[in-house]
Amino acid sequence: MSQYWSKLVHDLDPYTPGEQPKDQRYIKLNTNECPYPPSPQALAAIHAAADERLRLYPDPNADELKDAIAAYYGDDGVQRANVFVGNGSDEVLAHVFHGLLKHDAPILYPDISYSFYPVYANLYQLEAQLIPLREDFRLCLGDYTCTNGGIIFPNPNAPTSMAVGRDVIEALLQANRDSVVVVDEAYVDFGAETAIPLITHYPNLLVVQTFSKSRSLAGLRVGFAVGHPDLIAGLERVKNSFNSYPLGRMAIAGAAAAMRDRDYFASTCQQIMTTRDMTVQKLTELGFSVLPSAANFVFARPPAGNAEALYLALKQRGVLVRYFNKPRINEYLRITIGTDAEMQTFLHVLAEL
Amino acid sequence: MSQYWSKLVHDLDPYTPGEQPKDQRYIKLNTNECPYPPSPQALAAIHAAADERLRLYPDPNADELKDAIAAYYGDDGVQRANVFVGNGSDEVLAHVFHGLLKHDAPILYPDISYSFYPVYANLYQLEAQLIPLREDFRLCLGDYTCTNGGIIFPNPNAPTSMAVGRDVIEALLQANRDSVVVVDEAYVDFGAETAIPLITHYPNLLVVQTFSKSRSLAGLRVGFAVGHPDLIAGLERVKNSFNSYPLGRMAIAGAAAAMRDRDYFASTCQQIMTTRDMTVQKLTELGFSVLPSAANFVFARPPAGNAEALYLALKQRGVLVRYFNKPRINEYLRITIGTDAEMQTFLHVLAEL
Repeated sequence: MSQYWSKLVHDLDPYTPGEQPKDQRYIKLNTNECPYPPSPQALAAIHAAADERLRLYPDPNADELKDAIAAYYGDDGVQRANVFVGNGSDEVLAHVFHGLLKHDAPILYPDISYSFYPVYANLYQLEAQLIPLREDFRLCLGDYTCTNGGIIFPNPNAPTSMAVGRDVIEALLQANRDSVVVVDEAYVDFGAETAIPLITHYPNLLVVQTFSKSRSLAGLRVGFAVGHPDLIAGLERVKNSFNSYPLGRMAIAGAAAAMRDRDYFASTCQQIMTTRDMTVQKLTELGFSVLPSAANFVFARPPAGNAEALYLALKQRGVLVRYFNKPRINEYLRITIGTDAEMQTFLHVLAEL
Repeated sequence: MSQYWSKLVHDLDPYTPGEQPKDQRYIKLNTNECPYPPSPQALAAIHAAADERLRLYPDPNADELKDAIAAYYGDDGVQRANVFVGNGSDEVLAHVFHGLLKHDAPILYPDISYSFYPVYANLYQLEAQLIPLREDFRLCLGDYTCTNGGIIFPNPNAPTSMAVGRDVIEALLQANRDSVVVVDEAYVDFGAETAIPLITHYPNLLVVQTFSKSRSLAGLRVGFAVGHPDLIAGLERVKNSFNSYPLGRMAIAGAAAAMRDRDYFASTCQQIMTTRDMTVQKLTELGFSVLPSAANFVFARPPAGNAEALYLALKQRGVLVRYFNKPRINEYLRITIGTDAEMQTFLHVLAEL
């Protein structure tokens, strides 16, 4: 507390990211990072950009990266003007809350969801109305019917890992035309359907993705949004009133190269899905209830519901998973899918507890 | 314009950065970048960090970088808890406006100053009162006497290049104890006095610096603030409600190494000051009025006051400088100090116009 803080600072309840231990003692299954290294082409592009040109500002519009994203989704009609980029999808989402979701009516999001949403709402003083997931954690978009200033949900949802189909999202867009619908697709590449093909039909759809998960670049800080050029223009206005150059030269070069390396991307995503299936099977054999996952993590309830005790016991034995001490989900663990070897070790430790 | 934009987006007047041409045809004296490459130690640290660890999130607190900054200013009593870091000083300043300057009373800044200040004020809906520089462009801190929600000014000022002494800043701090005083020291390393030694005496002083100018890392996007731990804690609350990880792994490693390489830093700053003195002398010989500069640029009025025409003529001949079509300064050019060779070419082209 300080007399010098703006009034809003006193009322903030900042986001707490998962633990980032500085030693390497842990098998780290707690922050949904990819267990595989970035594309060799991305690393090569980063090294190639790390030279005396760093004395110069980067391209404030990051056109090389926007073009790489547009090319990747070119079959869906995505062009440079449909793409916004930022310093991780967290920065992109912050600008979305400020620039596209701040209206008179409350925004809607699931009661169990990415825990940064209420933090943004608080920062920008938006009213929010939480729509409960169903008893079995299903996200029913048919429940999002009230007047609203915008709708946002992750697909797949976090920390539940469960996805909805593109047809369900399209039905929501047909029913909800007066406010922006944001689909936060941080985990979409592990088996869910992206909503990006819908952007050319629905001018109020914004899809947000990140390089931190499926593209193995959490340490580079790059995220993006895809939508109608008018939505992108609104985000650019906010961004250019905040920081002209959120992406440095190496972030632009590395992320663009990662986007262009389709084969590496496809093979690491596939490997994670295979390991996930094995993990789900083994957890089920151990008596866990595992929600159906379309993400690079699983959300699982131990037979005795003693999630917190298991989290602590695993940590003591060198395996970090994520535990949320919150209503409805405090008997579950969120477990990131690592390599096969990491998951074997995790399962072995778990079986011995 | 779009029905989906938040109301504030319609009212924004975003910042326009200096031109960043994508070809290399220009002698670029328009955005105050350093003409010398980053420290070899910084480049080595960046290459060393660009490996498979990029799949992992960075340290959200960037402690390695905070410690390097604290060590650099250790003689002034700076410790880790006195340091805030962000994605360029522009992001740091944005959080400062939001978290420390948003109060009932208006904030004060010079009428001629960094043109991002009114943009931030608009983004966060702060009232601002502009205090005119004196007729000769001097910043007189004795003029900042009215009730205020905060005071911010660059030292040296931009685009005038003129600095005030630390004693004058201390007098302001003694007179103004109820709101935050922000000294924006983007250009301080080229001959002005930093206010950092005052932070242990004045809990309302915040000093902001950047790696983009004197440390040759505009392309890496790193800036920082130094002040009382309570001010830093307020900024951390805002940052952790916006983006947990604004600095990637390479930004942290590269900036920390640049901060540790004191010799390289001292020698490039000295070289720029030497080149500046030569440039000022030659411009004066050509009849220009040059304001006394403590920055890595000069602000100069051509004898005929035809600054815009000269800007265009120079651009046509491959030399980019910065022209501001604004009251009081529209007869001046802002000229970044490049290498000796670049300035010789610039002066040669100028003499032939």
